[in-house]
Amino acid sequence: MDPVSRLGLSIALILAVAKVGGDLAARLKQPSVLGELLAGIVLGSIGLPFFEGLRTDPNIDMLARLGVLILLFEVGLESTVRDVMQVGFASLRVALLGTVGTLLTGWAAAAIAMPDSSTLVHLFVASAITATSIGISARVLKDVGAARSREAATILSAAVLDDILGLIALAIVTGMVTHSASGAAVTPWTVIRLVLVTVGFLALAIVAGVKLTPLLFRLTARLRTSGVLLATGLSFCFVLAWASNAIGLAPIVGAFTAGLILDDSHSRRFVERGEASLSSRMEPISSWLVPIFFVLMGMRSDLSAIVHPRTLLLVVLLVVAAVVGKLACALGAPRGSNRLAVALGMIPRGEVSLVFASLGLSMGLLDAGQYSALVTVVVLTTLVTPAALRARLRSSAAAA
Amino acid sequence: MDPVSRLGLSIALILAVAKVGGDLAARLKQPSVLGELLAGIVLGSIGLPFFEGLRTDPNIDMLARLGVLILLFEVGLESTVRDVMQVGFASLRVALLGTVGTLLTGWAAAAIAMPDSSTLVHLFVASAITATSIGISARVLKDVGAARSREAATILSAAVLDDILGLIALAIVTGMVTHSASGAAVTPWTVIRLVLVTVGFLALAIVAGVKLTPLLFRLTARLRTSGVLLATGLSFCFVLAWASNAIGLAPIVGAFTAGLILDDSHSRRFVERGEASLSSRMEPISSWLVPIFFVLMGMRSDLSAIVHPRTLLLVVLLVVAAVVGKLACALGAPRGSNRLAVALGMIPRGEVSLVFASLGLSMGLLDAGQYSALVTVVVLTTLVTPAALRARLRSSAAAA
Repeated sequence: MDPVSRLGLSIALILAVAKVGGDLAARLKQPSVLGELLAGIVLGSIGLPFFEGLRTDPNIDMLARLGVLILLFEVGLESTVRDVMQVGFASLRVALLGTVGTLLTGWAAAAIAMPDSSTLVHLFVASAITATSIGISARVLKDVGAARSREAATILSAAVLDDILGLIALAIVTGMVTHSASGAAVTPWTVIRLVLVTVGFLALAIVAGVKLTPLLFRLTARLRTSGVLLATGLSFCFVLAWASNAIGLAPIVGAFTAGLILDDSHSRRFVERGEASLSSRMEPISSWLVPIFFVLMGMRSDLSAIVHPRTLLLVVLLVVAAVVGKLACALGAPRGSNRLAVALGMIPRGEVSLVFASLGLSMGLLDAGQYSALVTVVVLTTLVTPAALRARLRSSAAAA
Repeated sequence: MDPVSRLGLSIALILAVAKVGGDLAARLKQPSVLGELLAGIVLGSIGLPFFEGLRTDPNIDMLARLGVLILLFEVGLESTVRDVMQVGFASLRVALLGTVGTLLTGWAAAAIAMPDSSTLVHLFVASAITATSIGISARVLKDVGAARSREAATILSAAVLDDILGLIALAIVTGMVTHSASGAAVTPWTVIRLVLVTVGFLALAIVAGVKLTPLLFRLTARLRTSGVLLATGLSFCFVLAWASNAIGLAPIVGAFTAGLILDDSHSRRFVERGEASLSSRMEPISSWLVPIFFVLMGMRSDLSAIVHPRTLLLVVLLVVAAVVGKLACALGAPRGSNRLAVALGMIPRGEVSLVFASLGLSMGLLDAGQYSALVTVVVLTTLVTPAALRARLRSSAAAA
């Protein structure tokens, strides 16, 4: 049998499961990615032989990895470098306080619940839960009717910075782990070097990218064949993902940076002659690749491993850490805004945490239970946010 | 290093090569797929280490296989079952005469140039060159300014039937090869059974598909999440590809059938609420996956194998067979139309021939030289058509 027919069938099943899960989530007023993730968890727990094979299918794994690159590229496309530069001081404060807060609470939680693991692994778990998911936060804000509020603007700007901070944390912690795995001691100098490499990559890629990409798109706009805009955008994403990986960072760092660099102005020449913009051309691609990522992440988690008391303790402590850590954001929220609402809006975790979890599993830092615990934290933080945010906005509206 | 970063870089390079090749082809008034194929041939012949690795990279191979499913699905989407049923008697005659003609001339050519191969392999090569490429023919007709002529209508209807006949031939011949490889003798009964299975699959899939897919799309249209239309269409394509492969046919047979079954009416509920139609949602996906197929097919061909006298003879004889076989189409063309122009318009070969070639290589029926010869036939038939067709249309216009 042709191997593509099995792969095609797997994709068809994953998409069916993802869309049914997404539909159920939407009916329960939850973000559809949560439904995709939960559908994967359910599917992985039933133990049907075909789905068991999907967990370890190398082709599905590769499509999921492509999917997460596409996802981070799209998240980056939604903001421009200028947006990030013009982010208010308040959003910067919110992002930094939330990141530092979660790193500290997450570290404490991991140290208590994973006493047998090293400090590096504790740091890894703490970093995994730092980044707020822009996509999920935006969806939750829309659902509670606060998408155009002042709080939403602060939250979403802070969430973009949060992704950057989360990716820097990912880069540094995985760098430290690789360094330590090679037998070398992790010295302060190791950390400083990793910070410099990461920040240097981001700065160089962004400066060079902003300068050179208009020329690149002007040149490719002259090519007389179809699909050029998409091919240029996608290739730029993949080349930056490769470059970031080549210097030791995760490929998603490059994919996200590529998205940040590109904005509507790059599509202009193509749009002027009647083609669709890059982000609208990307949408169908992400709509079949990204669900593969979320369903697979769900399928790989193991509900039977979670009921183990130590894993349950880890889940509870990490959820508490994830919520409490982000409450620090309230201190940074702008004067006169609903500070607690800003902090609550920063709670949902998403794709970056899942990437951390999956990387931790494949690097042997996390066992199946710890991986599943992180996936569960993503589910729970997303589940608790809408009700809490709605209650907070309602009570403050009543007080006003 | 994360394996996805190498895959991403490979995709970026393939897309760059494909778009530059497509651009050059368009500037030379050739179809862009020809440029993609030739770019692949050039790249494969240079012998750069990175590109050498691409020829056998399993991930790129899998994406190319997905690409050809998507391509055949899209080709099928462009016509509906009703179009095929309402095809004029003239187009049916043109398709049948061209297929039978090419099978005979192709068989003779293969028997002369490949004396060491079995009759089955000769039949395989003959079947490989039967199907006219709808995409390339349509492009050539547009380029010579005859897209809206009566001849074009005949050619394009006949080319749809041609694809069906070509896929039936593929199914039967590969079935015979598999049967014979298992040690059993190929009897007339084997052939009859294969014909019945193939025609039975097509008939059953089409009848059941036309009856049931409106219900399927009506049900999925109720799902409250995004990307449902695309997920449903893609899953339908993949499930039919799997089903056709499960009964021993090539997966592209199912993908093409899925495309034939679906038409605009299936997208209606989605389009009414402001979403894009299935075919426009498919376009970005095919625009990055299909070039991977064409470039890879080109890269796998080996120019140094072609200069071998026996392979050169095979190329020359197959091109002659491909042209002469399709001249039989002139006999079937409608009265009063430019009969020779219809026959000339049926000459370009494309994706189906490439799938045959790649299948023959992977099944061990063809060696590298014979594979490369088939790829060259695709290139040459496409190259000779526009000039011949333009000359013929001009001379008949001058005579009128």
